[in-house]
Amino acid sequence: MSDSDITMIGIMGRWQGGAGDRLKEAALSLFRTQGYDGTTVAEIAAAAGVTERTFFRHYADKREVLFVDQGEFERAFLTGLPETGADPMRLIAAVLDSAATLFPEQRRTWSRARQTVITTTVALQERELLKMSALAAALTRALTARGIDPTSAALAAESGVTVFRTAFTVWVDPAEDRTFPVIQQTVLARLHALIGQ
Amino acid sequence: MSDSDITMIGIMGRWQGGAGDRLKEAALSLFRTQGYDGTTVAEIAAAAGVTERTFFRHYADKREVLFVDQGEFERAFLTGLPETGADPMRLIAAVLDSAATLFPEQRRTWSRARQTVITTTVALQERELLKMSALAAALTRALTARGIDPTSAALAAESGVTVFRTAFTVWVDPAEDRTFPVIQQTVLARLHALIGQ
Repeated sequence: MSDSDITMIGIMGRWQGGAGDRLKEAALSLFRTQGYDGTTVAEIAAAAGVTERTFFRHYADKREVLFVDQGEFERAFLTGLPETGADPMRLIAAVLDSAATLFPEQRRTWSRARQTVITTTVALQERELLKMSALAAALTRALTARGIDPTSAALAAESGVTVFRTAFTVWVDPAEDRTFPVIQQTVLARLHALIGQ
Repeated sequence: MSDSDITMIGIMGRWQGGAGDRLKEAALSLFRTQGYDGTTVAEIAAAAGVTERTFFRHYADKREVLFVDQGEFERAFLTGLPETGADPMRLIAAVLDSAATLFPEQRRTWSRARQTVITTTVALQERELLKMSALAAALTRALTARGIDPTSAALAAESGVTVFRTAFTVWVDPAEDRTFPVIQQTVLARLHALIGQ
């Protein structure tokens, strides 16, 4: 077992080691050491101790392996949508509080490692942007279903995604030690201060 | 000359018909009739009356042909950045006014046709998202260069891009007839009303 393997087991420690998680772990380790383009699905599967067939049962292709299921991701936000209320930014604030549970402290080392790979790989940046775009569309639909007009719904949803992404960027900064919920609330307050002038 | 060709010449009427513009025209026409995936660079070049070599002098690949040069796109925003001033959202408002010149009324028919292709083609949606992400990064850099802190700069820049994209979506709606500058100012005012609460 190499030092790099030991580091990755440390990073992934909180996960129980199902095949899907082992594949994520193996993929991140390989992407970091030999680059995204230089890594094949066969190598990821071999490093995780599974067959390629198992890889493709979990992920559609190499680009998907570092991403959680989009439906699961969106549900982490939408479960926080209050049953009542019509002020778009209050609804968004509740949704963001709910999404903060996606990033407990024990996930931070993994998220930092993942982020270094994503920011240096155009294909993964595109995938990340699509994920955020689909999230904004889902939040827009949820707000319009509440009777909020489409333009206000889109602006509130996009603003929520902006706050979430900005908070995430701060959270994975190696020099930052505040928790995700604290950072996100600070960023949301900053947005209100900036735009409320 | 088919009816479809005549329609496209009408759509592109304002352009003078340099090879780059003829390639855009041919690409949009082919993407609409036979789909993005079903269209090759060779077909686009042939329809524009140029060689493939000429295509690749203008565009890196098929995905690029419906997009303007990123530097040119960003300059349309950044030329509007006032020489002085430190309030991030005032700077962004000026930048958005400047960018509105990208969309005169004579471009509207073309923009509507282009949008129908982009919204139905994942590869082009990804390209569009990358373009907007790079724009937000450029605006963030311009604001931080003014001494604005990175988080405020990112939030203001992302909010500006949100207003721009939302205004564009409204502008290309077939049922909408207000001009781009009017729509964009309305959307910006809506954002202030929403978030300033």
